[in-house]
Amino acid sequence: MKLLAIVGSLRKDSVNKKAMKAFQEELPAGSEVEYADISNIPLYNQDDQEKAFPASVNKLSEQVRNADAVVFATPEYNYSVPGVLKNALDWVSRVPNQPFNGKTAMILGASPGALGTARAQYHLRQIGVFLNINFLNRPEIMIGSAYGKFDDSGKLTDAPTREFLKKAGQALADALKKHK
Amino acid sequence: MKLLAIVGSLRKDSVNKKAMKAFQEELPAGSEVEYADISNIPLYNQDDQEKAFPASVNKLSEQVRNADAVVFATPEYNYSVPGVLKNALDWVSRVPNQPFNGKTAMILGASPGALGTARAQYHLRQIGVFLNINFLNRPEIMIGSAYGKFDDSGKLTDAPTREFLKKAGQALADALKKHK
Amino acid sequence: MKLLAIVGSLRKDSVNKKAMKAFQEELPAGSEVEYADISNIPLYNQDDQEKAFPASVNKLSEQVRNADAVVFATPEYNYSVPGVLKNALDWVSRVPNQPFNGKTAMILGASPGALGTARAQYHLRQIGVFLNINFLNRPEIMIGSAYGKFDDSGKLTDAPTREFLKKAGQALADALKKHK
Amino acid sequence: MKLLAIVGSLRKDSVNKKAMKAFQEELPAGSEVEYADISNIPLYNQDDQEKAFPASVNKLSEQVRNADAVVFATPEYNYSVPGVLKNALDWVSRVPNQPFNGKTAMILGASPGALGTARAQYHLRQIGVFLNINFLNRPEIMIGSAYGKFDDSGKLTDAPTREFLKKAGQALADALKKHK
Repeated sequence: MKLLAIVGSLRKDSVNKKAMKAFQEELPAGSEVEYADISNIPLYNQDDQEKAFPASVNKLSEQVRNADAVVFATPEYNYSVPGVLKNALDWVSRVPNQPFNGKTAMILGASPGALGTARAQYHLRQIGVFLNINFLNRPEIMIGSAYGKFDDSGKLTDAPTREFLKKAGQALADALKKHK
Repeated sequence: MKLLAIVGSLRKDSVNKKAMKAFQEELPAGSEVEYADISNIPLYNQDDQEKAFPASVNKLSEQVRNADAVVFATPEYNYSVPGVLKNALDWVSRVPNQPFNGKTAMILGASPGALGTARAQYHLRQIGVFLNINFLNRPEIMIGSAYGKFDDSGKLTDAPTREFLKKAGQALADALKKHK
Repeated sequence: MKLLAIVGSLRKDSVNKKAMKAFQEELPAGSEVEYADISNIPLYNQDDQEKAFPASVNKLSEQVRNADAVVFATPEYNYSVPGVLKNALDWVSRVPNQPFNGKTAMILGASPGALGTARAQYHLRQIGVFLNINFLNRPEIMIGSAYGKFDDSGKLTDAPTREFLKKAGQALADALKKHK
Repeated sequence: MKLLAIVGSLRKDSVNKKAMKAFQEELPAGSEVEYADISNIPLYNQDDQEKAFPASVNKLSEQVRNADAVVFATPEYNYSVPGVLKNALDWVSRVPNQPFNGKTAMILGASPGALGTARAQYHLRQIGVFLNINFLNRPEIMIGSAYGKFDDSGKLTDAPTREFLKKAGQALADALKKHK
């Protein structure tokens, strides 16, 4: 399967980027993952949109279209999804023949606290109702107390989390097979 | 009372900007309204923050501190708050001595559809729990079918909505008096 | 298709019951609808459950299992789903081999106000994530200003709403065909 | 201060009941706590309401009115508040001169999982917007991994949680003083 990874944090050392990497490492053989770049998408303004969609938005839209499924890694900022991630979605949602329409997707999140970005994930699910994203109900990947689960090189060292991510990747593959 | 108006849309012709103007026109005599500019706030990135807060964020933070209350006018994009608005909040939330802490606030929203940005407003309320914003429970200002309620010059012409906004402004003034 | 209708109001004259009837009238030929009775389900108490599941809960569970899809008609009480509806779900969720697991479902709602039970519907969608209900993203059926749309006999007289319900029934039939 | 405790679980051995007891033990000297009984409130039906409010609902309404503040202990069933708790609120919300209007309140929750009933608590907060409950933003009391934190007699043995509850009780007392 061909996946598009969208990480909601722009920080170089982001724990959600690391979690996405670990998810990628545990995917079934033959899976491909492309990473979206949302760092160069301008603030959404309908006046700008009416002139032209930025190249960064057109690129992200094409990546969404070409993917079998999208995997979001969302931090939780202020009990919701990061503005940076939402801004990227706001742009793509306006692209003709809306790219997320009917797309299968999965959410993961990692946080230092106990909740593992749960609050952000339910907001993202509601956003997905509008975009007509088919989010898998299960598994929900909420990696709490995350800072202790990665080593200095950014590698996930927590064995149960690694096992959970492996099952999640398999679940996504199964869902895609079923919907074909 | 001194209010800070934060409009979640960058569009010149935004119906939420117009709704905020109408709200301002109906405020009790002696009220002052300052408008925040969130159009020049960069995408949030913790690496950038650790170097320095942008001047635009410092300015917004000071405006929040100096206001007796904050009034948000939020559009609804994809069943949630605009990324642009959330991004501004994500930056301000990291400023030392967090400016929104304990601040009284009110939400209004206008949309072409029936719901008047209701979905965005409940997400904003959840964000406010983290930021310790004291959102008034009532009134909730959801201006549905909004395009027919303003004239070509952007003036609110719908009398019941105008009356409702007047009562809302009075309710905010009353709440501020009570909390002093 | 064989549908199970679950109406969240116990009131005899419920506008949500009437909306469900109208939905039923507009279903594709050959569709069957069974109505759940949640009026005789006791308040959930785990101590009681450990003795025995009530007959009313066992019956509802069987109805859910036997249906191709479940259609909820939910009023909105206090910005959420009625306790009566949630209580029925709380019981069924504990039945071994959880009946809603993987079930296709759709939500409709009617209310006197403008929002058409929107707030209740998003709460129900979040509940569905846990129960692993596959709620269709679209259409969302929110019948606002509902009291003027039905005649004294309880018949839906609003033509656009009737047309919308017809398309919704067809969308549900299409979704079931696709998933088989 | 005089508090009304509303526990959302009817189970005799409820961990949320135990958490409420621990909260009570840590309250400032001179605090009084009365416990609501929601086990005998019938399923809400507007037809029944129009005949008469049940004695159990009238009693609960009086208890709410007489309290300086209400403290909810909510389990999380199916990612939301228990139907049993919501049903009690649905009844009380219809009582003339709605008892919760303007009432100060606080939420606590305990669960075996990591999230400590977070999802239920945000649903309860949204319900509170309609009821015009003044929920404290902070502290949020989410006791995760709760089963290991109480001994066989039901006593909270986890010292950090006990300390946290003590501060929460003090915060509630402070909020009440401030609003007087």
